[in-house]
Amino acid sequence: MPLLRSWVVSANDPAGSFPLNNLPCGVFSTDDEEPRCGVAIGDQILDLAALEQEGVLRLADDPVFDVPFWNEVMELGPQTWQALRDRLIVLLSEGATERAEVAPHLVPMAGARLHMPFLIAEYTDFYAGRHHATNVGTMFRGAENALPPNWLHIPIGYNGRASSVVVSGTDVRRPWGQVKGANDTVPRFAPSRRFDFELELGAVVGTASARPVTVSEADAMIFGYVLLNDWSARDIQGWEYQPLGPFQAKATATTISPWIVTRAALEPFRTATPPREVALLPYLAEPGPMLYDIALEVDLQPEGAAPTTISRTNYAEMYYSAAQQLAHHTTSGCPMTAGDLLGSGTISGPEKANRGSLLELSWGGKEPLALAGGDLRSFIEDNDTVILRGAARGDGYTIGFGECVGKVIPALTDPYAPS
Amino acid sequence: MPLLRSWVVSANDPAGSFPLNNLPCGVFSTDDEEPRCGVAIGDQILDLAALEQEGVLRLADDPVFDVPFWNEVMELGPQTWQALRDRLIVLLSEGATERAEVAPHLVPMAGARLHMPFLIAEYTDFYAGRHHATNVGTMFRGAENALPPNWLHIPIGYNGRASSVVVSGTDVRRPWGQVKGANDTVPRFAPSRRFDFELELGAVVGTASARPVTVSEADAMIFGYVLLNDWSARDIQGWEYQPLGPFQAKATATTISPWIVTRAALEPFRTATPPREVALLPYLAEPGPMLYDIALEVDLQPEGAAPTTISRTNYAEMYYSAAQQLAHHTTSGCPMTAGDLLGSGTISGPEKANRGSLLELSWGGKEPLALAGGDLRSFIEDNDTVILRGAARGDGYTIGFGECVGKVIPALTDPYAPS
Repeated sequence: MPLLRSWVVSANDPAGSFPLNNLPCGVFSTDDEEPRCGVAIGDQILDLAALEQEGVLRLADDPVFDVPFWNEVMELGPQTWQALRDRLIVLLSEGATERAEVAPHLVPMAGARLHMPFLIAEYTDFYAGRHHATNVGTMFRGAENALPPNWLHIPIGYNGRASSVVVSGTDVRRPWGQVKGANDTVPRFAPSRRFDFELELGAVVGTASARPVTVSEADAMIFGYVLLNDWSARDIQGWEYQPLGPFQAKATATTISPWIVTRAALEPFRTATPPREVALLPYLAEPGPMLYDIALEVDLQPEGAAPTTISRTNYAEMYYSAAQQLAHHTTSGCPMTAGDLLGSGTISGPEKANRGSLLELSWGGKEPLALAGGDLRSFIEDNDTVILRGAARGDGYTIGFGECVGKVIPALTDPYAPS
Repeated sequence: MPLLRSWVVSANDPAGSFPLNNLPCGVFSTDDEEPRCGVAIGDQILDLAALEQEGVLRLADDPVFDVPFWNEVMELGPQTWQALRDRLIVLLSEGATERAEVAPHLVPMAGARLHMPFLIAEYTDFYAGRHHATNVGTMFRGAENALPPNWLHIPIGYNGRASSVVVSGTDVRRPWGQVKGANDTVPRFAPSRRFDFELELGAVVGTASARPVTVSEADAMIFGYVLLNDWSARDIQGWEYQPLGPFQAKATATTISPWIVTRAALEPFRTATPPREVALLPYLAEPGPMLYDIALEVDLQPEGAAPTTISRTNYAEMYYSAAQQLAHHTTSGCPMTAGDLLGSGTISGPEKANRGSLLELSWGGKEPLALAGGDLRSFIEDNDTVILRGAARGDGYTIGFGECVGKVIPALTDPYAPS
């Protein structure tokens, strides 16, 4: 598919993130108005609540865009999602007849504030990148036991904490927690010293289910994707995670990018999961390519210094797709809800430069990473900013995700002092 | 504290569950009306939405009882919870001056339907019973490694799935899942054959927090307690749980009792956690007794047969209190929300007859349990009903929890057939 040309001129820049092909869904506010739904187009945001109020855009009897979340649109289902996309393409295409009705409702992105794009029902995080699982397993359990016996059969996941998910730009406070060093006889309660990021993609579940679904049905339930940084306190995790998995190590924050890139926008970039070493059970069989070719990178920027790109990888490196993860998630009869968020798991590639966490990049702190300015990093230092970016590159256009940014601010001196 | 006598005569039965001392919070409906908030008193439910409409009871400017959940009351905070309790005791006490205004709004419990009493924000399940952890650890890892090294230091927990929590009386469908027997070379996708219950108490978090809280602050955040059955597919769990903990094994359903017994009602029954083998870190220090003396029992009833009481234990057997669990839950900065539900972990006692799961009672299926009618049980069979009961026994009165009941119905023949 070529670039869809828009009368919003900035959307036609082949290097821009938000061409007419993209139309990602966000929630924005301007100085004097309440947060509401919009889509990104070039360097503008189209105010869908205003278009709805003017009668130019109407999805349902009641308004659905005048609220600070996309859940109401999601709940209308995939046919409506497609109808919305079709309508917006008509309204924003070069030569659109309704340009005069639409143009007044473009808001410059530079002057808008972006909010959480949806209400998160529940958050599940997976462990579905083979390179990541192998790297972490090698560090924790040795090369022979790197992959757990179930790993090639099950998209391993755990339930995360929805209340901790924040939108890009939110500062992340270094957590306190219970830690115990290899040479300590008893644990201590202290600020985490091995605080890390995890480069992931988040799938946004758009429709509910109350019974097991196939991979094909699961794919159709996905509204779109966001960049996701699953902040992880490795020292807390190492001490707490046996036998029931990570808990407080992953509960400080998870940052997502502010724009939900729809499944429809990503359709031209579908690519297959890798060949299977062992056959998957039939309930995990894929009816077609279920991953996407999305180039990903991570910058780390110390305060006052230039950013260094510390990782470059691709979502196509995953072993399990979001559709497979969602299908597995429903096997037990677990009810899924519009607004559920599924983290892909850390997306590392085969080489050192493709690793999606500092744990892997610095090999547990043993091989500190050199930044552009000469600083070394084993884990995140106070006031470091971590920036995730993602882009699917098409024929003369780019589907960008916007940035997923978080700055780690120092731990509280006394976490129990009244604020 | 003695029995508080009520003009609702059935509430004065020393063996009854719902004296004036109790006043648990539920959501009920009658034939022709919407679900709304009520409290249990004797064999009646007091319709608080009606009392509020009549102006006899008023907690806030806007109505809070005319909705099918207690979250709005919870969010008003502990002072308001106490004011509500005080007001209800005045209205329902023997000799109350407003008896005539209140009496028309009593609804016979026998004719009412009970619903989920609150909207569950997120669900966390702990592993805080030492007898249970020791039993399970011995079965899975051997007696020498029964308790993980962190267990005496951390109230171990994992995030559960809020969407799967159902109210007492809801049938539970036996799940399908990925399982692998010890002698299998590859896993299979099949209905669980080792489906189990777990006897727990659930703490209902009533106020939000956005920073770490002390054990004392955590205790004040708890609105009340429910009985909780954390249904568990042991065969699915055994194959999936390494390294990130239980996932689909615990996602089919968790059943809670319909009445939230308030912290105030349980106050006379406080009892201390057991002596510590190793000192806890200061952030887990308890300012006073944080457990409760609540007698618990489990009945198992095959279809068409009489129930057998298969376990008798007490909440006082726990190693960590709900307040300690909640305090630990906030250490990382994890935001807590009104409506969060914390499962205690399985409440087993020291003897075989005190074990809170079939996994323990049948020692992994090796020692099947004989029921009253002669049937044997290693795990739950189709159409078995599991009934949990709880009671704190005071001076001439009983604080009952009502029953937490679930019947396990057969697995779907084909989980992917359109329903």
